[in-house]
Amino acid sequence: MALWSGRFSSDPREDVALLSESISFDRRLYAHDIMGSKAHVAMLAKQGIIPETTAIAIRAELDAIRERIEAGDFVFKTELEDIHMHIESSLIAKLGAEGARVHSGRSRNDQVALDIRLYLRDRIDGLTDALRDFQQALVERAAADPDAIMPGFTHLQHAQVVLFAHHLLAYVEMFERDRERLIDCRRRMNVMPLGSGALAGSTLPLDREAVCRELGFDRITRNSMDAVADRDFIIELLSALAVFGIHISRLSEDLVLWSSQEFGFVELDDAFCTGSSLMPQKKNPDVAELSRGKSARLCGNLMSLLMLCKGLPMTYNRDLQEDKERVFDSLDTVELILKVYPPMIRTMQINREQMQAAASDPALMATDLAEKLVEMGVPFRDAHHRVGSFVRYCREHNVALDKVPLAEMQISIPEATEEFLTLFSPEASVAKRDIPGATGYRQVAAQLAFWQEQFK
Amino acid sequence: MALWSGRFSSDPREDVALLSESISFDRRLYAHDIMGSKAHVAMLAKQGIIPETTAIAIRAELDAIRERIEAGDFVFKTELEDIHMHIESSLIAKLGAEGARVHSGRSRNDQVALDIRLYLRDRIDGLTDALRDFQQALVERAAADPDAIMPGFTHLQHAQVVLFAHHLLAYVEMFERDRERLIDCRRRMNVMPLGSGALAGSTLPLDREAVCRELGFDRITRNSMDAVADRDFIIELLSALAVFGIHISRLSEDLVLWSSQEFGFVELDDAFCTGSSLMPQKKNPDVAELSRGKSARLCGNLMSLLMLCKGLPMTYNRDLQEDKERVFDSLDTVELILKVYPPMIRTMQINREQMQAAASDPALMATDLAEKLVEMGVPFRDAHHRVGSFVRYCREHNVALDKVPLAEMQISIPEATEEFLTLFSPEASVAKRDIPGATGYRQVAAQLAFWQEQFK
Amino acid sequence: MALWSGRFSSDPREDVALLSESISFDRRLYAHDIMGSKAHVAMLAKQGIIPETTAIAIRAELDAIRERIEAGDFVFKTELEDIHMHIESSLIAKLGAEGARVHSGRSRNDQVALDIRLYLRDRIDGLTDALRDFQQALVERAAADPDAIMPGFTHLQHAQVVLFAHHLLAYVEMFERDRERLIDCRRRMNVMPLGSGALAGSTLPLDREAVCRELGFDRITRNSMDAVADRDFIIELLSALAVFGIHISRLSEDLVLWSSQEFGFVELDDAFCTGSSLMPQKKNPDVAELSRGKSARLCGNLMSLLMLCKGLPMTYNRDLQEDKERVFDSLDTVELILKVYPPMIRTMQINREQMQAAASDPALMATDLAEKLVEMGVPFRDAHHRVGSFVRYCREHNVALDKVPLAEMQISIPEATEEFLTLFSPEASVAKRDIPGATGYRQVAAQLAFWQEQFK
Amino acid sequence: MALWSGRFSSDPREDVALLSESISFDRRLYAHDIMGSKAHVAMLAKQGIIPETTAIAIRAELDAIRERIEAGDFVFKTELEDIHMHIESSLIAKLGAEGARVHSGRSRNDQVALDIRLYLRDRIDGLTDALRDFQQALVERAAADPDAIMPGFTHLQHAQVVLFAHHLLAYVEMFERDRERLIDCRRRMNVMPLGSGALAGSTLPLDREAVCRELGFDRITRNSMDAVADRDFIIELLSALAVFGIHISRLSEDLVLWSSQEFGFVELDDAFCTGSSLMPQKKNPDVAELSRGKSARLCGNLMSLLMLCKGLPMTYNRDLQEDKERVFDSLDTVELILKVYPPMIRTMQINREQMQAAASDPALMATDLAEKLVEMGVPFRDAHHRVGSFVRYCREHNVALDKVPLAEMQISIPEATEEFLTLFSPEASVAKRDIPGATGYRQVAAQLAFWQEQFK
Repeated sequence: MALWSGRFSSDPREDVALLSESISFDRRLYAHDIMGSKAHVAMLAKQGIIPETTAIAIRAELDAIRERIEAGDFVFKTELEDIHMHIESSLIAKLGAEGARVHSGRSRNDQVALDIRLYLRDRIDGLTDALRDFQQALVERAAADPDAIMPGFTHLQHAQVVLFAHHLLAYVEMFERDRERLIDCRRRMNVMPLGSGALAGSTLPLDREAVCRELGFDRITRNSMDAVADRDFIIELLSALAVFGIHISRLSEDLVLWSSQEFGFVELDDAFCTGSSLMPQKKNPDVAELSRGKSARLCGNLMSLLMLCKGLPMTYNRDLQEDKERVFDSLDTVELILKVYPPMIRTMQINREQMQAAASDPALMATDLAEKLVEMGVPFRDAHHRVGSFVRYCREHNVALDKVPLAEMQISIPEATEEFLTLFSPEASVAKRDIPGATGYRQVAAQLAFWQEQFK
Repeated sequence: MALWSGRFSSDPREDVALLSESISFDRRLYAHDIMGSKAHVAMLAKQGIIPETTAIAIRAELDAIRERIEAGDFVFKTELEDIHMHIESSLIAKLGAEGARVHSGRSRNDQVALDIRLYLRDRIDGLTDALRDFQQALVERAAADPDAIMPGFTHLQHAQVVLFAHHLLAYVEMFERDRERLIDCRRRMNVMPLGSGALAGSTLPLDREAVCRELGFDRITRNSMDAVADRDFIIELLSALAVFGIHISRLSEDLVLWSSQEFGFVELDDAFCTGSSLMPQKKNPDVAELSRGKSARLCGNLMSLLMLCKGLPMTYNRDLQEDKERVFDSLDTVELILKVYPPMIRTMQINREQMQAAASDPALMATDLAEKLVEMGVPFRDAHHRVGSFVRYCREHNVALDKVPLAEMQISIPEATEEFLTLFSPEASVAKRDIPGATGYRQVAAQLAFWQEQFK
Repeated sequence: MALWSGRFSSDPREDVALLSESISFDRRLYAHDIMGSKAHVAMLAKQGIIPETTAIAIRAELDAIRERIEAGDFVFKTELEDIHMHIESSLIAKLGAEGARVHSGRSRNDQVALDIRLYLRDRIDGLTDALRDFQQALVERAAADPDAIMPGFTHLQHAQVVLFAHHLLAYVEMFERDRERLIDCRRRMNVMPLGSGALAGSTLPLDREAVCRELGFDRITRNSMDAVADRDFIIELLSALAVFGIHISRLSEDLVLWSSQEFGFVELDDAFCTGSSLMPQKKNPDVAELSRGKSARLCGNLMSLLMLCKGLPMTYNRDLQEDKERVFDSLDTVELILKVYPPMIRTMQINREQMQAAASDPALMATDLAEKLVEMGVPFRDAHHRVGSFVRYCREHNVALDKVPLAEMQISIPEATEEFLTLFSPEASVAKRDIPGATGYRQVAAQLAFWQEQFK
Repeated sequence: MALWSGRFSSDPREDVALLSESISFDRRLYAHDIMGSKAHVAMLAKQGIIPETTAIAIRAELDAIRERIEAGDFVFKTELEDIHMHIESSLIAKLGAEGARVHSGRSRNDQVALDIRLYLRDRIDGLTDALRDFQQALVERAAADPDAIMPGFTHLQHAQVVLFAHHLLAYVEMFERDRERLIDCRRRMNVMPLGSGALAGSTLPLDREAVCRELGFDRITRNSMDAVADRDFIIELLSALAVFGIHISRLSEDLVLWSSQEFGFVELDDAFCTGSSLMPQKKNPDVAELSRGKSARLCGNLMSLLMLCKGLPMTYNRDLQEDKERVFDSLDTVELILKVYPPMIRTMQINREQMQAAASDPALMATDLAEKLVEMGVPFRDAHHRVGSFVRYCREHNVALDKVPLAEMQISIPEATEEFLTLFSPEASVAKRDIPGATGYRQVAAQLAFWQEQFK
C-alpha cells in the first residue's frame, strides 16, 4: 500500500505502477537522499520538532540502510515507487512511529529537489576532474611531438601549414570552456531547496540555514514555489554536456579522417579499435565513431528536457519525473567517453612522414607569398589576386608551385624576387607565424608551458 | 577473444568494451536474428553453398538457442559484444566448424539491417493493434454519453458549445492518422536487405528472393550500399511515434485541465491517479502528466537519430549502433502508454452537470446570434460587429447575454427579434450544427456509427 | 481597426502588433486563400446563402485582388494582421456589405487550415518533381561512367571495391524514399477542412462536398475540432524534409571528402565552389558544405513544430501561428538545394585514375580471399581468421598483400592455391559480385536501366 | 566578380549565389564590422604595417560608410556575398589600393569571429537590461497586491494557499538565473580572436593585445585554430535563450489558465489580447499564447546550432555560415517578448474575489491539519494518513472539510481538538508559513524588499 493511500479506495494497476515508478532509476540517489535526511533530522531535533533520541536513532538507521544498499542487501519493489519511499519505509519498518518522523516538515517535492542537486554536484565534480585529465592527455600528446607539422584545413581543403601540437591544443581550449560551463552550472545549482515543502514552505520552525551549512550549499533558495517547480539547472547541465558532445564529435571526426587510408596521419592503438566480421584487413576507429555518435544522444537528452518543461503550469507536475533518466544517461555517456578518450590520445601514434608529405604541398604556402607581397607594400587584395593568378597558372600548366622558375612566376607576380622561391618550406612557414595564438614553434611551446602550469 | 581478432595483437580494454558493447540492449533482437539466420542457411543449402545436413543441424540448434534464451539459460557476456556474436558463438560451441558456416555470404552489416527490420515490423504490428484498441476505448466512452454537452475551447476560452463525444472523436481522428503513418512506415521498411554483405554484395550465388519470400518481405533492397548505410526507416518510425506523443500530450493536457478543481469536468479512476505525500486531499492525474511528459522523450529520441545520421559518409559507420536504444525506448514508451490509456478512458467518469453549467454560458451562443443575422441577410462582418457590441454592452452592464430584454438588445442589434431570445439554449446550439463533421447530435451519431463499423 | 474589434475598447499596442502579425510571412498564401474563397462563395450561392450576383462579384474581385498582388499593387499593413484580413478588407473596400458576405459560415480557423493545405499540396508537387530531376542527374552521372571503380568505405576505412555508379545509385534509393514520404504526406493532408468553422462546424447549410470537389481534395475532414486543432500534417512534412536533409548531408559529406587533396576523387565545377579571401589556392566545396549545414535548420524546424504543439489543449491556440515560418523555411531550403545540386552532380568531374589507384589497395580484396575459402568448403569464421592472420603477417613484414609469394601466404592460409594470387584485381572483385543489389557490372547496369525506365 | 576569384575561370551561378550569400542577414553586423576594422587598421599603422595616413583615410571612410548604411544610402548586392565584402569593396571603390590594405593580416574567418562576438556582446547587454525591467514589472505587480491570496497548484490540483505575490516572485527567480546565464555567456565570449587569420595566425607583426584593449575584450584567444573553428559561445547563448523561452512558456501557461472562464483569476489588458473573427465575445490571451509558442523556435534554433557543428572537422567549414540566422532569430524573438511582457504584467488586473474564493477550498488546508498533528507529536506519516481518511470521509459524505463537527472529525483524527476547526482560514494558513523562502506574509514582504533593493 502506498504511503499516500489514505484517501484512496483502490491501489493502482500494475501497468500504471510500471508507468509511474521511478525506483528503477532513482535508486541512484540513495546516498544523497540519506545525506539529506540526516541533515534534516539533525535540524529537526535542534529545533525541538522531534526528540534528540529520535534523531539519533533515525540517523543511525539511515547509515545502516545505506550499508545494506551498498552491500546489495536491500530489496527494491516497484510498488514502493521511488527511492524516497523505499528508504522511509525501511526506516519505519525498523523504528516504527519514531522513524516516520523523518518526513516532518518535508515533501517529496523539496526532498527530490535537494537530492538531485546533491547528486549532480558530485557528478559534476567527477566530470571536471575527468576533463582535466583529458586536457592533460592532449597536452602530453602534443608535447611529445612539439615540432610535427601537418596541413591545417579549412573546408577540409589544405589551407596553411600548422603544428600537430597546435591542432591538439585547439581542443584543450574547447574542453576548458566545457569545464568552465560545468563549474558555472554547479555554482548556480548549489542552492539549498529543503524547507520549500510541497510548494508553499512549512508551518514548522525549520532552520533552513543550518541544513544549508551542513550540506555545503552556498545559500538557501529564496522562493519555495520556484524551488520545487523548476529544473533549469538540469537543462543547463545537459546543455553543457551537449556542447562537450559537439566538441568530442569534432575531435572524433578528425581522428576518423586521420585514420583513413587516404589521410594516414595517425594510428590508434588496437585497444581502441575493432575489426570487421567480414573484412579481416579492417581496423575501425570504433571509439571515435561511437563517441561521435553519442553526441547525438547528449543533444537528444537536452531537447527532451526542454520540451518536458515547456508550457507546464506552476508548480510541480508529475511530468518532471522524466528528468532523471535523461540526465543520468548524459552523465554516464560523458563519463564513459572521458574514461576511454585520454588513454586513446596518449597511445595514439602519428605518422610524421605522411603528415610532413601532406604539409609540403607548396599550395599551402600561397598565403605566405601574399603576405610577403603585403610586407613589400602591395595592398592585400592585389597581392591576393596576383598569387591567385599564379596558382591558376600552375594548375593550368600542371606544375607544382615550387617548381616554377622565377621568370614564369613574375608573369603573375611582377614583384616576385629570388626570395619568393624560398617561401615554400613548410617549417619556415610555421616559424614565421610568431604572434600570440598563432601556430609558430615559439608560440606553441609557450602554450604548452601555459597548460602544463595549469595542471600543477 | 572477439571473432574479428585475427588481425589484432591485443584485446580491447574493459572500458572500451563497455563503450562498444550492444548486447545489453540488442539481445532483444534474438528471436529475429534467429529467424533471419534460419532463412539464410536454408537458402545457402538450397544454393549448394553449404550441405543440407549442415543447414538442418544449424536450424535445429538455432531453435535450441532460442529456447535456452527464452528459458533464461543463456549467458550473455559483454566481451561477445552483440547478439549476433552471442548466437554464432553458441552455434560454434555446439556444432564446431559446421556451425561457423552460418555466416557464409553475410556480414554483420546486412545481418543487423535484416534483424532490425524484422523486429520493428513486429513491434509496429503490436502498436497498430494497440492504437485500434485505444480508438475503440474513446469511441465507447463517447458513445456512453452521446448527448453530454460541454463548452468547446479555442485559446482556452469558451468558444461554442460542443458535444463531449465530438471532443473525444477528434482524438480518434488523430490516432487514425498516427496508425496510418505507422502502416506507411512498415510498408517502406518491409524490404529485404540480406545479401548486401558489408556494403558491396556477395560473390557467392545467394538467392535473395528466396530469403525475401520466406521472411515475408515485399521485395529485396535494390542497392547494397544503401541497404547497410541508411536508417531512415527508423527515423520515420521515431517521427511517427513523436507525433503520437504530441497527440497524447494534448489529450493529457485536456484531462489534466478537466480534472482540476476549476474545470471539474471529469474524474479519473483512482487506479490511474496517485496521492500526495504531504497533502492528503490531493488526487493527481499522474498517468496523464507522465504521458504528457513522455512525449518529450519521444521527440528527443527522434532528434537523436536525426543528429546521429547527419553528415556520416557512406556506408556503415559504427555511430549507427546508437540507433537501437533510442528506438527501443520510444517503442516501449508508446506501448506502455497504450496499455494504460484505454482503461483510463473507459473508466473515466464525467460530471455532466458541471459541463452543462459551463456550456450554458450564454456568451458561447454569440456566434449563433451572428449566424442568425447572416441567415436574415446581414453581411457576416456587420453581423459580427453588432453581436460584438452587444457582448460589450452586457459586460459593461455586468449582465448575462440571455438576461437582456429585447429592446436593450436592439440597441446593438437592430434586427433582433423575439426569436433571438431563444438562441441561448446550448442544446439548440448543438443541434443546429448539422453538416458533416460538425458537432450536431445527428452528425456525431453518424461518426460514432462510422467508427464502430471500422472496428468490426 | 481590426475586424474583430467590436468587443474591445482599445487597439493593440504597436509592439504587440509586431508580435502578433503574420502578414510578413503568410502573404505567401494569397493565391490559395483566394482559390479557397472562390470555391466557398460559389458554394454559398448554390446553397442560397448568398445571392448568385454577390458570388459573381466577389469572385471577380478576388481575381482582381490576386492580379493586384501579383503586380505589386497591393499594400500590406501590419495592423491588418494576416493575409485573410487583407484580402477580405480589400474586398469590402471595393464591394461594401456585399463583399463582407464572403466570410459567411467560415472562421479564420478553418480558413487557414484550408489555405495551408492547398499551399503545401502545391509545394510538395514542386518538390517531388525536383527530386525526380535530382535522381535523374545522379543516374545520368552514374551512367556516364558505368565502369569507374573506387574503394567502398565502412567506418571510413577501405572495405571492398565498388563501382562509382553503384555509390551514386545508393543515393537515388534514398531520394526515392524521400519522394515517397512526400507523396504519403500529401495524400494524408489532402482532406478538406472548410465548414469546420471556429471549432464546432456551422449552423448554415454548407455543402462541404461541393467545395471538396471543386478544390480537388480526396475527401472532407470528419471532425471539425480535429480539423482546426491539429497540425500533424505539417510535422509529417517537416519530418520528411528533415530526412531529406540527412540524406543530402551524407552526400555532401562524401563530396567534401572526395574533393579533399587526400582523396582527390572528384572535382566540382567552379560554378559550385568559392575561393578563399586569404588563401588563393583554395577551392572550397561550398555548396556541399552549405547543404550539409542546412540539414541542421531542417531538423531544427521539425523540432520547433513538435515542441510548438506539445501539450496544447484543444482546439485552436494562437501558438499555432508559429507553424508557418518554420515550414516555409524548410520548403525554401529544400527547394534551393534541389535547384543547385542536380547541375553540380551533372558537371562533377571524376578522377578515374585516383579512384582506381585507391581501389587497387589489395587489402580491399581480403573478403574475396575469405569467400574463396568458403567456396572451397572452409567455414566462414575459419576463413575469416586465416585471412586476418595473413593481413597481419603482411603488415608486420610491411609488404602488400599481392606481393607475397604463395608459399608465404600458405603459412596463414594453408588452403591457398595459385588462383589466390589472381584475386587481387579490383575489376575481377567487382565483377564477381553478381547478385541483385550488388555492385557487379551486370547488376549496376540493370539498376541504371531500371531507373532510366522510371524516368520515362 | 568576387574578390577571391583570381583562381577561378567562371563566376558562380545565380542560384548558387542565392544559396551562398549571407548579406541578406549578416548586414546587421555592419557597425561591428566597421568597429573591428577601425581597431585593426589603427594597430596596423602603429605596427608600421601600413602608413599612418592610410589608416586615417580608411578609418574616416569606414565612418562614412557607416553613415551611408544608416542613412539607407548603401546598395547591397547578392553577388558581394557578405557584409565584409560589401564594406571592403566600398572602401576600395573610394580609396583604391590604399583601401585594400584594410585586410592585411586578416582573414574573413577571424574577421567574422570578431564581428559576431562584438555584436552578440551588445545584444546580450540589451537583453540583460530588458530582463531587469521584466523582473521589476513582476515585482511592482506583486507589490501592488502584497496580500492577495490564491490557491497554489501542484499537478494543477489545489495544493496549499499561497500569496499571488509569492507566485509572481517565483518567476523573478527564474529570470534572475536567466540573466546570470547570459552574463556568464558574455564573459566567456568576450575574448578577442583577431589575428588568428584563416586558421594559423599571421606572419605579420600584429599587436593583438592592442586591438583587444581598444575593443574592450577581457583577453585574446589563445589558439588560432580554435578561434576560427568553434561556435560554442553561440550555442551557449542559444541555450540560455531557450531556457528563458521555457520560463516564459510556463508563465504564459499560467496566464492562459488564469484568463480562462474556469479560473477567472486575471484579466489582461485589451491591448495584449485579440478578439475572434467568428466569436465576438472572445478575448484571447494572444500575447501569452504566442510567447508560449515562440519558446518552440528558441529551442529549435538551439537544436539547429548543435546539429550544425556536430561532426565538423577542424577548422572553419562553410556550414558555420548557418549560425547567424538562427541566433538573430532567437535574439529578436526574446527581445520582442521582453518588450511586450512587462507592460502586460504591469497592467494585468486580478480578480481578488475569485482567487480568494478558490483559495477558501478547505481541502487546501489539509496539510495544516497534518502539520498541527506533527506539532502535537504525531509522526508525520500517521498524521498524513489520519487527515487523508478525514478527507475521504468528507468526500463520501459530500460535505466540506470545514463543515464537519468535531466529533465526526475525531472518527478519523482522534487527536483533533476545537483548535482544529480554526485551521481552515486561508489567511492563517499563509501567515503560518513563516520561514525563509515560504509564502508567509512577512517572508514575501522581505523578498519584495530584497528585489526592490536589487533594482536600485
